[in-house]
Amino acid sequence: MEGTRFADRLQGMAGNVIRELLKLTQQPDIISFAGGMPSPDAFPNEVLSDLAEELLLTKKVAMLQYGESEGYYPLREWIASWVSEKGIKASPEEVIILSGSQQGIDLSGKIMLNPGDKVAVEAPTYLACINIYKMYEAVFVTAPNDEVGLDVEALEEVIEREKPKLLYLVPTFQNPTGRTMPLERRQALAELLTRHDIVLVEDDPYGDLRYEGEPVPAVKSMDVTGRAIYLGSFSKLISPGLRVGFAIARPEIARKLVLGKQTTDTHASQLAQALVYEFCSRGYLKDHLKRICAMYDAQRRKMKEMIDLYMPKSIKWSQPEGGMFYWGVLPEGIDAKVLMKEAIEEKRVAFISGESFFADGSGQNTLRLNFSNSSIEKIEKGMKALAEVFNKYM
Amino acid sequence: MEGTRFADRLQGMAGNVIRELLKLTQQPDIISFAGGMPSPDAFPNEVLSDLAEELLLTKKVAMLQYGESEGYYPLREWIASWVSEKGIKASPEEVIILSGSQQGIDLSGKIMLNPGDKVAVEAPTYLACINIYKMYEAVFVTAPNDEVGLDVEALEEVIEREKPKLLYLVPTFQNPTGRTMPLERRQALAELLTRHDIVLVEDDPYGDLRYEGEPVPAVKSMDVTGRAIYLGSFSKLISPGLRVGFAIARPEIARKLVLGKQTTDTHASQLAQALVYEFCSRGYLKDHLKRICAMYDAQRRKMKEMIDLYMPKSIKWSQPEGGMFYWGVLPEGIDAKVLMKEAIEEKRVAFISGESFFADGSGQNTLRLNFSNSSIEKIEKGMKALAEVFNKYM
Repeated sequence: MEGTRFADRLQGMAGNVIRELLKLTQQPDIISFAGGMPSPDAFPNEVLSDLAEELLLTKKVAMLQYGESEGYYPLREWIASWVSEKGIKASPEEVIILSGSQQGIDLSGKIMLNPGDKVAVEAPTYLACINIYKMYEAVFVTAPNDEVGLDVEALEEVIEREKPKLLYLVPTFQNPTGRTMPLERRQALAELLTRHDIVLVEDDPYGDLRYEGEPVPAVKSMDVTGRAIYLGSFSKLISPGLRVGFAIARPEIARKLVLGKQTTDTHASQLAQALVYEFCSRGYLKDHLKRICAMYDAQRRKMKEMIDLYMPKSIKWSQPEGGMFYWGVLPEGIDAKVLMKEAIEEKRVAFISGESFFADGSGQNTLRLNFSNSSIEKIEKGMKALAEVFNKYM
Repeated sequence: MEGTRFADRLQGMAGNVIRELLKLTQQPDIISFAGGMPSPDAFPNEVLSDLAEELLLTKKVAMLQYGESEGYYPLREWIASWVSEKGIKASPEEVIILSGSQQGIDLSGKIMLNPGDKVAVEAPTYLACINIYKMYEAVFVTAPNDEVGLDVEALEEVIEREKPKLLYLVPTFQNPTGRTMPLERRQALAELLTRHDIVLVEDDPYGDLRYEGEPVPAVKSMDVTGRAIYLGSFSKLISPGLRVGFAIARPEIARKLVLGKQTTDTHASQLAQALVYEFCSRGYLKDHLKRICAMYDAQRRKMKEMIDLYMPKSIKWSQPEGGMFYWGVLPEGIDAKVLMKEAIEEKRVAFISGESFFADGSGQNTLRLNFSNSSIEKIEKGMKALAEVFNKYM
């Protein structure tokens, strides 16, 4: 039998390396700093259980019947009001509920990209965004950056030369680096979007996980001409298993996102949307965030302590004020993949080498450590073991 | 401000006509035979409420953490065993859980279609499939059919002439016509798939809603060379709001579907998947199906009774043995859209004119009536009112 004639867009597509690795690291004896998952202690099961019971018994049909592609209206209203606290002005009609915010990256590609269109991303950038835009046969160009993220002046030259159609950024507590773009750069970026008529996909799943320092407003809050598609998520704040995120975009773009959503999966799970709505609107989110931020902050500090105590001084580490990740840059010439393999096999400790976060295939000497998914005890034990491997090579 | 430069694939894309219309018909005074929704009395809220509580309190992390893109493994196992009763042999690894089976149509396009590739569909066919494959810039060719569905002999000529890459069918209780393809044609089709190395997307959301006659095995059960992607759904059996469906395909294709799923929405809602699993595996599904089939059968019979009593004899109606729809063919020259508009405006009764189910823009004199979403009383009242409009024109 001949092989199936798949679409050209699958050429060179491998599975999401991290999702494949996650399967491996689910073995119970592994300490994993690899994934980007919330802590198993961070889920509000009891409250959600009560809410699910109440919703299914009192809202009845609305929970189980088909819903609107735009999303559950009460949640759209609540989000519009919630983001106004972050300076984003949006009507509920400009809020589209998604099956996780990652779907917003997919839909931005679906509605915007022709094969060969250019997308500007940071190097490194969120791994899944590379695979998603590849599915639309995008060509990547690198948005230049430094220790605090995107360099807007340098980006302007890239835009003039390469004419990308989309710019994808995680401006706050970036995955994988943990970096946060300062206010002035965000303002300059918002102006640049208008000047060059380029669309920004501003992905912000971590913004509310801040453990120190002052919040920085979203680029979307400065986006007076509607060039930014803002993506938000409840995956890191409540639960990734529910699959509820959202996009905010001006009506012209929002309508196209809905068209994309209709032709993808009709709508997000009604029960999941309603659970998120009730959890947020009844005030549970606020206290829950306080609790998980305190927990993640302790984990972040413990990991920093272990890095300072045991890791080779020749590694450069990011200093995240929030989010879920530390980013390490090893001395040139050291391949983090080699260390990763040895750490998993010899020490049963996993992390992610950084290469797959680079659309251009560079970054061999980089790595990402997740602190949100491991207890203080595991961070202590795992980081000590990891340092033994690292010290052998440096 | 210039308009946004959207992707070429959006050219000529309008919203899903039915989903737009559904919003209109949600006004409380409208009797709607328009949508394809389950009855509001068909949802097992109490059982699902108990299960949700139990799952969230006992399975804890597994319900709220990230899951695998392939889906919740116990559900994949249960489905593999369930479909074996329908003659489909599949390992759990060949079962991929989707956020509704419609996502399977989208993913089949994503992994199979290059712009300009041909897709064979029946005329009429499922409306959403037209919009979904349009997003992949497919060119439609018509799979010839008659009163019982696809004419396989005539299809072979079309295949030789047009070389379609995909064939999309709803062989059982088709949406919109309610037709079911007989066994011999299915056997002939399975052989033809192998002979021409063409992939069939066999969409089967209604197969378990049979009210009379004998079940006909799925084409997938005869697909010895693995050319069929079988799509199943719990939307019509349990709840569309949960958004849980599945695809069954041979490993090579299943892997690509997972790749598509990873780059679309990561995975389906864990809680929704687990609810479906517990509902099915604890035996609730069987009794529930008995109950809703009895209910839908009564609605189907009542609608037939009203058609026979009041509708003009010049309309040809389908005789569905299951599913959710009657299909009517008006005398040539009568435009069903005109009747639809008058029925909604003058009588507050909605149905769907058939034109949008035809990829080639024909079918102006056709219409679809849904009986699953209206009570016996509404069917009596609504059909009488509808017949008044229809009799004016015939």
